[in-house]
Amino acid sequence: MRMDVLTLFPEMFEGVFHSSILGKAREKGIVNLHAVNFRDYAGNKHGSVDDTPYGGGGGMVLKPEPIFHAVEDLLERRREAGEEAGRPPRIILMCPQGESFTQRKAEELAAEDHLIFICGHYEGYDERIREHLVTDELSIGDYVLTGGELPAMVIIDSVTRLLPGVLGNEMSAVTDSFSTGMLEYPHYTRPVEFRGWKVPDILLSGHHANVADWRRKEALRRTWQRRPDLLENLDLSPKDRKWLEEFEKESGRNMQE
Amino acid sequence: MRMDVLTLFPEMFEGVFHSSILGKAREKGIVNLHAVNFRDYAGNKHGSVDDTPYGGGGGMVLKPEPIFHAVEDLLERRREAGEEAGRPPRIILMCPQGESFTQRKAEELAAEDHLIFICGHYEGYDERIREHLVTDELSIGDYVLTGGELPAMVIIDSVTRLLPGVLGNEMSAVTDSFSTGMLEYPHYTRPVEFRGWKVPDILLSGHHANVADWRRKEALRRTWQRRPDLLENLDLSPKDRKWLEEFEKESGRNMQE
Repeated sequence: MRMDVLTLFPEMFEGVFHSSILGKAREKGIVNLHAVNFRDYAGNKHGSVDDTPYGGGGGMVLKPEPIFHAVEDLLERRREAGEEAGRPPRIILMCPQGESFTQRKAEELAAEDHLIFICGHYEGYDERIREHLVTDELSIGDYVLTGGELPAMVIIDSVTRLLPGVLGNEMSAVTDSFSTGMLEYPHYTRPVEFRGWKVPDILLSGHHANVADWRRKEALRRTWQRRPDLLENLDLSPKDRKWLEEFEKESGRNMQE
Repeated sequence: MRMDVLTLFPEMFEGVFHSSILGKAREKGIVNLHAVNFRDYAGNKHGSVDDTPYGGGGGMVLKPEPIFHAVEDLLERRREAGEEAGRPPRIILMCPQGESFTQRKAEELAAEDHLIFICGHYEGYDERIREHLVTDELSIGDYVLTGGELPAMVIIDSVTRLLPGVLGNEMSAVTDSFSTGMLEYPHYTRPVEFRGWKVPDILLSGHHANVADWRRKEALRRTWQRRPDLLENLDLSPKDRKWLEEFEKESGRNMQE
């Protein structure tokens, strides 16, 4: 899969594209990652890519030409290289007004051949970019960031780790909180006692069925405590329901004390 | 404000800490950013920071000692440098089970003196880190990432831009989608016509009251279309309500066609 990022700060991507999972996925040839400075497409001697807004008011607005030209140049070079056979690219505008990025969206994007991310930086985008160039607008959460660069990195990471051959089994097992629909159960490793805090006996018992039971119960407890919204979509067993009643009773007792 | 990140991939932070707003905030001395490799605190000759989970199963779990020691060394050096006068640090675990990060949380953290971020990477955390070391657990969204590094960068960016002296007025005006409670109105800049797509006449009229009206209406329209959940918390004028009725009617008409 190919992913291009249009940004005014390509140097922000250096460390991230070369480290950890993304670095390994590049080395294996599974992903092809590029950060392109769209200031190179400014088409004026000052390299200016933004201008004041029509209608007045503060702030600057990113002009349409540099971004259209940068995208079109990418597509042209893809044609020249004979890579146009795949699906047409998804052209993704990173912006706070976009659709909320979710794990489901990551899975959808992981099935594509080519993603192009457009990252603004403090400025707004000229509306014609939104209307006539992009295929998607995405936001990673309801908080204000300086630019689209970090959100693009977040999406690139979450998509890349879904591509076949990227994660070894040893890595995929633990982190997938959202794939079971519950939060994770507590993990413990050596030492068995650290500053007087001990690993629960049941995990040392060697009794696999009891361990599995404890883990299910604790995952359910954590989900019930922290993300009760996730419980609605779970397929709960009679035992799960009994545990949930137990948590409710315990918390009622604690509140009365 | 001081922010330290404990990570196994400090090189990921290089470009981000030196570019754009974070780079400028560092140069101005407003923030003091460090990425620390907690492998340096492994305390064994192999530099191993993780181990298999008690109770069996796949995946690896980050051991408690290296992370406790790295945090304690930071605090010790802060004492030696006479910087302990401020509020005690918030020690933030980046994890999918954490509280959802929001703009309100960014504002809360921006009032602190010292933040320490702990970033795991594919592995789980030994539960004793959660129970006995950290003050907060945060997640930036419901998607699976390879590690806590990108989420830590997201939080550092959103907190830093709230610190006094970091943003000039010219930058702060446009992006604040979530501070007005509505999504932004459409922006336009030069050229007035691009490939046949023109800037709306009203923005060229010079009539400030009409421009302000148009912008309020379009911001409301976009919020109604994309994030109707935000409307509940808005203080709507009678004119706003009339516009909302208009949008409803238009969409009903379109659905019948």
